[in-house]
Amino acid sequence: MGRVEYNKVSSDDLKALASIAGASDVSTEDYDLVTNSSDAFPGEPTLPEAVVWPESSSEVLKILTYASKRRIPVTVRGGGTGLTGACTPRYGGIVLNMMKMNKILDIRQLDMQVDVEPGLIYDQLNKELEPYSLFFPPDPASGKSCTIGGMISNNASGLKAVRYGATRDYVLALRVVFPAGLDLRFGARVFKYSIGYDLARMLVGSEGTLGVITEATLRLRPLPRNRRTVAAYFDSIEDGVRCIGRIRLSGLEPAAIEFLDRTHLRLISDWSGLSLPDRECMIILEFHSYSRAGLEEELSDALELLREGGSVELVVPRSEREAERIWEARRGAYPSILKACRSPIIGDIIVPLSRLLDGVMKAYELARKYEVRVGVMGHLGDGNIHANWLTDRRNRDEWERALRANADLTRYAIEVGGALSAEHGVGVEKKEFMRDQHGEVVDLMMRLKEFFDPNNILNPGIML
Amino acid sequence: MGRVEYNKVSSDDLKALASIAGASDVSTEDYDLVTNSSDAFPGEPTLPEAVVWPESSSEVLKILTYASKRRIPVTVRGGGTGLTGACTPRYGGIVLNMMKMNKILDIRQLDMQVDVEPGLIYDQLNKELEPYSLFFPPDPASGKSCTIGGMISNNASGLKAVRYGATRDYVLALRVVFPAGLDLRFGARVFKYSIGYDLARMLVGSEGTLGVITEATLRLRPLPRNRRTVAAYFDSIEDGVRCIGRIRLSGLEPAAIEFLDRTHLRLISDWSGLSLPDRECMIILEFHSYSRAGLEEELSDALELLREGGSVELVVPRSEREAERIWEARRGAYPSILKACRSPIIGDIIVPLSRLLDGVMKAYELARKYEVRVGVMGHLGDGNIHANWLTDRRNRDEWERALRANADLTRYAIEVGGALSAEHGVGVEKKEFMRDQHGEVVDLMMRLKEFFDPNNILNPGIML
Repeated sequence: MGRVEYNKVSSDDLKALASIAGASDVSTEDYDLVTNSSDAFPGEPTLPEAVVWPESSSEVLKILTYASKRRIPVTVRGGGTGLTGACTPRYGGIVLNMMKMNKILDIRQLDMQVDVEPGLIYDQLNKELEPYSLFFPPDPASGKSCTIGGMISNNASGLKAVRYGATRDYVLALRVVFPAGLDLRFGARVFKYSIGYDLARMLVGSEGTLGVITEATLRLRPLPRNRRTVAAYFDSIEDGVRCIGRIRLSGLEPAAIEFLDRTHLRLISDWSGLSLPDRECMIILEFHSYSRAGLEEELSDALELLREGGSVELVVPRSEREAERIWEARRGAYPSILKACRSPIIGDIIVPLSRLLDGVMKAYELARKYEVRVGVMGHLGDGNIHANWLTDRRNRDEWERALRANADLTRYAIEVGGALSAEHGVGVEKKEFMRDQHGEVVDLMMRLKEFFDPNNILNPGIML
Repeated sequence: MGRVEYNKVSSDDLKALASIAGASDVSTEDYDLVTNSSDAFPGEPTLPEAVVWPESSSEVLKILTYASKRRIPVTVRGGGTGLTGACTPRYGGIVLNMMKMNKILDIRQLDMQVDVEPGLIYDQLNKELEPYSLFFPPDPASGKSCTIGGMISNNASGLKAVRYGATRDYVLALRVVFPAGLDLRFGARVFKYSIGYDLARMLVGSEGTLGVITEATLRLRPLPRNRRTVAAYFDSIEDGVRCIGRIRLSGLEPAAIEFLDRTHLRLISDWSGLSLPDRECMIILEFHSYSRAGLEEELSDALELLREGGSVELVVPRSEREAERIWEARRGAYPSILKACRSPIIGDIIVPLSRLLDGVMKAYELARKYEVRVGVMGHLGDGNIHANWLTDRRNRDEWERALRANADLTRYAIEVGGALSAEHGVGVEKKEFMRDQHGEVVDLMMRLKEFFDPNNILNPGIML
């Protein structure tokens, strides 16, 4: 990859773009260039030369066809909440900002499906679905600002994946525009199919490098009728993590199994004013059930498992509001770490469940080795560990050590059969690990990229 | 597609194949050629020129590389239970029979994963998993003889997909050998990942046309602790089908929602000696639950829904054995239809849930129009309708009319946003509908086929 003889955006190009998208949807203003130059990844931002806000598939088709002929790079952007730099315009060119294509096109209650445009915000989707008693289960922590298109492009998941799966499991059909001048529909509006190569699922997680998603059909689920939350505190990391493995094998199916260590508990307490117990770690479980009686049995068995497993403090909220307070604490993890240090490195690995404890301990071992502070949290129920390195870019030496620690942990995950990323994606951040993860398959991916985007104009320098 | 200047298998080729796979694993005996010439699809069988039973990935690699150079077609075969002719050696050549690669390589209980070879029989896998309290949920009716490799190649699903999903949802990683001389591993041994193009999921359902699967890592689930079955009979198709929609939206999550119409009930009764009630249709529900109390509540609410929805007879087994009798009846659907007519045409479409009733009625309407008998059954809980045309190939005229009825129903499914196949695949049978389903995407699929298999030696004439 990495053909870099791109053309700059000329004044003729700007005129052409304005004639396609409308003059008010093309900008070269500093403010727009700067706000479209990076996501939440603390890498070097690179400015685009122009930002375009398409409003339809046909506009996207014309823009991509034009840019491909002119060899101008096009970087696709959703809510900009990504953590790996995947929407960084590394070679300048055009940022295709999808935020104006944000409509819910059709809610089909009986089909338990919805058609959406990619710029739709996650929280808004679930708000609009509520009156239909349906929801889209993947639940990223950035739900207030992330877009469905971004979630699809990164196969985002989050808090509920342990029970409900990741975004890929909910994408039934996609409309995708390719730089070679194609506007195609993949998949079908049904829950399963065997109809040839499943390109819809292959495009999920492709980080905007193959084509631009302009519509998606998502499957939905009925809103759970009953929920209960429990928070369990431990004085030992081992006890806490081991409990998670036991819960998974017990047959209990919590909708969420979250983990926060002491570092995170303290940061959240400081940031939020909630005075969380000062313990080694905390596990949060959420149970969803059709039956209230069933829910009570699950909860009671879970509490027994947690107690037997060494939990020293159990909090069982009696009301939705009390439960919400626990989830607020959990959602404070990211803002509180940002408050505590300017540019933390947010880790995202996933390991097989038998390596959960090993993986968590490895993070602490690396923190000692490289003399950096780490907070460990994550969706541990499915093996997804976020080791967050508390550092500041301006302290160059510490920053480099934190990067090395995160790199070592990423390689460890790959070595034990896991993955370099569970849900944040590859972007700029994890490119260097792609060959460790995939071996020769990386070459195949590069050839596929060429197949779909022969002039390499889409998100160049990202992922591959 | 359809480059047909293939070479015949010469005596030199047979020597080369014997030196790769061992002489006892290569055959040109009539018996072997005939038993490797077709699956359960009533199309014209075509004989291969040789059958080879590889025993390792490295043998598969050598065979494919050799055959690609020599331009000899290679058709991959599992249990031969397919219903679309996808393992028919349409251009002769070699059948690669995977039945000797049938080992369970590793059961990882804590990880809830298993590594298997593709020739492993479905039922055997679940039997071996039982002591670990784990199971592989996709549940095809052909579980006694179908292989995991075949299930992956067709994205098989079956009875439990409405709750647990299809095979694709359980494939975490694959080892695949390609004719271009590559032996590659895709995916990772974890429940979710965002690590580039998801080629593992794309290969699921590719019907052996891109590469040969030689190992698979599957995710597993804890065996359900409690189950209950209920059978509900109706005197009206409308009432029965409408109940299914209501159950889906109620928040109840049955593990199975099956449907059988009067034609099937009678065929099963005749075949099995079970005297099932002579009603318009029957719905079978199975509930799985961690909690016994929860299960009772679900069952009781379901019974109320069924009664309110017009069920005239409810059977609620009190024991596992009684429940098993209902499932035996359901499993009798396919053998009983084979008994009743020599060569039924087994339909397999899927429609959005809002079109369920419409889709079922369409099958009856087409039966009247083309004057053929039809039995309708299926996994209606996820929209998957099997309209089975009771005909006999020897009655040429009737056979043709049945084919036309099935074709019209298939096109109907595509028109309402559904799919030409839910779980049986494309094979030879449904090739003609691929353009109706995919439009221009078919061209893209053909180019992808060329990308992975430039000499078009793998399963030529299948799917595309």
